[in-house]
Amino acid sequence: MTHPATPHLDRVDTPADLRRMSDAELAHVARELRAETISAVSVTGGHLGSSLGVVELTVALHAVFHTPHDKLIWDVGHQCYPHKILTGRRDRIRTLRKEGGLSGFTKRAESIYDPFGAAHSSTSISAALGFAVARDRGEATGDAIAVIGDGSISAGMAYEALNNAGHEKRRLFVILNDNEMSIAPPVGAMSSYLSGLYAGTPLHALKDIADSMVGALPEPLRQGALRARALVTGSGTGATLFEELGFDYIGPINGHDMGQLLAVLRAARARATGPVLIHAVTRKGKGYAPAETSADKYHGVASFDVASGAQNKAKSNAPSYTSVFGRALVEEARRDARIVAVTAAMPDGTGLDLMQQAHPARTFDVGSAEQHAVTFAAGMAAGGLRPFCAIYSTFLQRGYDQVVHDVALQGLPVRFAIDRAGLVGADGATHAGAFDIAYLANLPGFTVMAAGDEADLVHMIATAAAHDEGPIAFRYPRGEGVGVEMPERGEVLPIGRGRILREGAQVALLSYGGHLAETLRAADLLEQRGISATVADARFARPLDTDLIAQLAAHHGALITVETGARGGFGAHVLHWLAETGRLDRGLRIRTMTLTDAFIDQASPEAMYRAAGLSARDIAARALEALGIAAPDFEARRA
Amino acid sequence: MTHPATPHLDRVDTPADLRRMSDAELAHVARELRAETISAVSVTGGHLGSSLGVVELTVALHAVFHTPHDKLIWDVGHQCYPHKILTGRRDRIRTLRKEGGLSGFTKRAESIYDPFGAAHSSTSISAALGFAVARDRGEATGDAIAVIGDGSISAGMAYEALNNAGHEKRRLFVILNDNEMSIAPPVGAMSSYLSGLYAGTPLHALKDIADSMVGALPEPLRQGALRARALVTGSGTGATLFEELGFDYIGPINGHDMGQLLAVLRAARARATGPVLIHAVTRKGKGYAPAETSADKYHGVASFDVASGAQNKAKSNAPSYTSVFGRALVEEARRDARIVAVTAAMPDGTGLDLMQQAHPARTFDVGSAEQHAVTFAAGMAAGGLRPFCAIYSTFLQRGYDQVVHDVALQGLPVRFAIDRAGLVGADGATHAGAFDIAYLANLPGFTVMAAGDEADLVHMIATAAAHDEGPIAFRYPRGEGVGVEMPERGEVLPIGRGRILREGAQVALLSYGGHLAETLRAADLLEQRGISATVADARFARPLDTDLIAQLAAHHGALITVETGARGGFGAHVLHWLAETGRLDRGLRIRTMTLTDAFIDQASPEAMYRAAGLSARDIAARALEALGIAAPDFEARRA
Repeated sequence: MTHPATPHLDRVDTPADLRRMSDAELAHVARELRAETISAVSVTGGHLGSSLGVVELTVALHAVFHTPHDKLIWDVGHQCYPHKILTGRRDRIRTLRKEGGLSGFTKRAESIYDPFGAAHSSTSISAALGFAVARDRGEATGDAIAVIGDGSISAGMAYEALNNAGHEKRRLFVILNDNEMSIAPPVGAMSSYLSGLYAGTPLHALKDIADSMVGALPEPLRQGALRARALVTGSGTGATLFEELGFDYIGPINGHDMGQLLAVLRAARARATGPVLIHAVTRKGKGYAPAETSADKYHGVASFDVASGAQNKAKSNAPSYTSVFGRALVEEARRDARIVAVTAAMPDGTGLDLMQQAHPARTFDVGSAEQHAVTFAAGMAAGGLRPFCAIYSTFLQRGYDQVVHDVALQGLPVRFAIDRAGLVGADGATHAGAFDIAYLANLPGFTVMAAGDEADLVHMIATAAAHDEGPIAFRYPRGEGVGVEMPERGEVLPIGRGRILREGAQVALLSYGGHLAETLRAADLLEQRGISATVADARFARPLDTDLIAQLAAHHGALITVETGARGGFGAHVLHWLAETGRLDRGLRIRTMTLTDAFIDQASPEAMYRAAGLSARDIAARALEALGIAAPDFEARRA
Repeated sequence: MTHPATPHLDRVDTPADLRRMSDAELAHVARELRAETISAVSVTGGHLGSSLGVVELTVALHAVFHTPHDKLIWDVGHQCYPHKILTGRRDRIRTLRKEGGLSGFTKRAESIYDPFGAAHSSTSISAALGFAVARDRGEATGDAIAVIGDGSISAGMAYEALNNAGHEKRRLFVILNDNEMSIAPPVGAMSSYLSGLYAGTPLHALKDIADSMVGALPEPLRQGALRARALVTGSGTGATLFEELGFDYIGPINGHDMGQLLAVLRAARARATGPVLIHAVTRKGKGYAPAETSADKYHGVASFDVASGAQNKAKSNAPSYTSVFGRALVEEARRDARIVAVTAAMPDGTGLDLMQQAHPARTFDVGSAEQHAVTFAAGMAAGGLRPFCAIYSTFLQRGYDQVVHDVALQGLPVRFAIDRAGLVGADGATHAGAFDIAYLANLPGFTVMAAGDEADLVHMIATAAAHDEGPIAFRYPRGEGVGVEMPERGEVLPIGRGRILREGAQVALLSYGGHLAETLRAADLLEQRGISATVADARFARPLDTDLIAQLAAHHGALITVETGARGGFGAHVLHWLAETGRLDRGLRIRTMTLTDAFIDQASPEAMYRAAGLSARDIAARALEALGIAAPDFEARRA
């Protein structure tokens, strides 16, 4: 693989170097930065489309604002690769999303140029307002700039932040990076026309200019300008939402035109006294033909060939849990007209794209709005439907109060399909599904399940579909199943009953969820040491299969629980029950294996689980320790 | 106490009776309903102001819509007393908020006229949209009507719901109950003028009429109309936010004028094909002079004398935890200019009203916006400030993802002051602070404390102020302290260290948080039985004082943990540690007392804790059981 020639970019060690360049040089830097980004992501895979959309914006922001004294905050942060290249991380850019490498998102621990890390959407304006207050209170920090996409700004949290920032009236910059609006060339021309004026105009007059200029423009510029404004204001002439919330609004401008960007950002920086929203229109995948022409704009890609754009996708033997969920739900929905499905801006990621295709009128994508998604599903359940609410473990945290207050407290039968449970690999700590067991398993009336393999996932979908008695959730990991034989059709499982997969004598390994295969491997390792292990799959964290637990405890020398979640979850509830029923009074060699007490950085899932102390070897070692057998040698065998 | 004369209201057994009445009779019903509401709340206390603001609206909605087939959903639900009187609960209305009585909020379990319960704000539009989908999918349910206040509609969740409802385009009614706008009489006149027209006009033409009519009105009606519209649109002529989101907008109308309400609701019901927002202007406390003239409009009152309005407030011997927090924070802030404070629409409830008075520029009320509140605080912490984020336990659930993703994962030193921890009395299950220990104590890097008494709360505030190493939280109960001597100034506590309050020999009682006094009482009860108990206060759920726990476990016949929270919290983490370190291997009589596994209905806090199995007698009984002593007789002594 050859690296692109980047003579201008090579002169940039830190963003301060950009501030010594001419506008023409900055345009060269942007071109080379795009090539470098494509080259890097062709090696690592990652969020290419969004990064290519903000290349010019990244250069312009660093050239105009004085980072890191000024605080540049990227919402979500998946568009930050060009930013990382410009901020002292170019030498490591081909380690993106790899173990020990750069994070795929912004991250405070990684660089002083990442003042506020991200990965979940819609947090940037809140954080930027916090920095603005700190500056106004005398802390050594400069301007605060939030860059937020059109999808993220539609979330409730961003609205709350805009609302509060407008009220606070502090100097603050929000860049709306709008790549949904496919604006035709005339707008670009209109934007050029306006941005020339911006540079010499007091900021408070910019809006009036934008309004009054439209009528003076010749066709077809006028039509384009009206269309652009209509997209923002709804009417084409009224105030924008942002102005109603107290912001000065500038735009829309062409986010790929360095001249426009620099002029507008310089004018805004020179003159702003309150909150300013700059509306930049960009194209996802801009400047790389395979990305621009692809349906998903190379949102997230595997490594690929730069010349052809062909991605190197690994072949899998087993189906992904996500696709198993999608297909099984379509099948359940075919038999039951009351089944409906809700996703929060993740139809593909959750597998609900299959439901969208098969049952479009029964599938609801509510956008990045987990709070609404959960209560909307609760409303449908109260109305007699059977809603499946499919949200990743980490994002369901956004709807936690709604899960408690609207679903659990009212006992409404919402079915929660919780994908990405446990550690997720390249997306790292921010996307780990670590807490859902703990935050669900203590909710009265909830039924809480986890799939031990992809066949059990099918059964749990059937179980959830049939369960009208109250809320029910089932979690399953990211990635492929383990290759078990798949049932023709899901069976309704008995509530609160686990299963025994392997009978042994000395130690009982009780798995909850996605580490069942790892637990079986641990039993193999123990077998090699001559230790006979029972392996059970709890299936339910609530209600617990107390008969099974009692049996395992009574008939083995030790009991080890295994779950791919934080403490306070399945193992904790097992311990509570054992304590409560006096089963610990006379001694029980029990160990509760959970994710270790740390946020685990990105790596392969296997490596992350090793770091979390949850490999098969860790499980086997813990079993030996519990049995009082001398320090095991599994450690040495680690690859 | 005499009941008011209510001849018209007496004819209303169910809302169907309203639909057989003339408009004039309905106006009489409204007047009598107001008197009955005042009379009832004078006995029970409760949310009087908001209930009085919706008397006419309640009558009109039930008279026009066919409840319970149509689904009427009150946001928050604290304004539902008139609704309860009209919907078959009049005979129990003087049991509001009492043990065994009516809930102070809407509640599905209580009535078929409460299709979706509430208590936390901003959920109604999401739920209503769910019912609308169910109706469109053929379920036996009619129209869905959400009634939401101007404070609640500004929360992100409501915005998410409006956004989605506008996109869905389904027939749906949102009544914006606006009592912030103090609109002058001319508007009322303008509204009357318009509402006469509404009745005979196709719905899609209503907006145009509202717009075009303004110019045709004589002064001063025109000025009033323009002002009213300006309050909604920001500019006085443009589209409203609601229209931008896809709603038909009607208003503002006078929410106390039965004629206007009935005309507009009938017209809307007859003609709506998509989502409609009706903007009604009301006055909190309307029609009861002491409420109208009070600063808080009798938002939440004790029982009172109807003639004078004088409330019967109980005298307290000890200060409330809330006021202790408020005063101590002001004192810390006086010494440290970096301390700032954030509340989400609860300055009085959290005690931050004192901060607002003492340090107005350092106190931020962001409105009903917990998501933003948490990340805004995180931004301020990243900027170098020392933010205290004061949110009730139950409402912090709204910001849970932000606590995990923005605060914990980045290790930012946000200080969480968690009031209303544990059970809260009259507000019931929806306001219980049951889950915060569990949802915080497994977050890596977090320091999690609970105050055993009001003096310790002062120390924890000082501890939090001094703690720059990462996030820190401290919880404390609703209500008064226990009357301990108060320190001159808070001392910084050693992190992860508990304290022993009473030395004993046979059983160790380890309390975490607000039940310390109850635990001491349990020790007294045990003493009466000749059992000597050690009482310790853990202070920290994270990091655990493992030395203390090891000592208690090693030197007593049994160890009982006590916490006013759900399972998976403090006791669970104690058990995890004991299991992990092999301390359960040879037997440990340990019991982890938590809130029982159920949502507990309103009563006095003492009665609620009895229902939750957490009275002093319950604790003593559990200790005896753990020690293997025959069934105790504490049960019999229950009052």
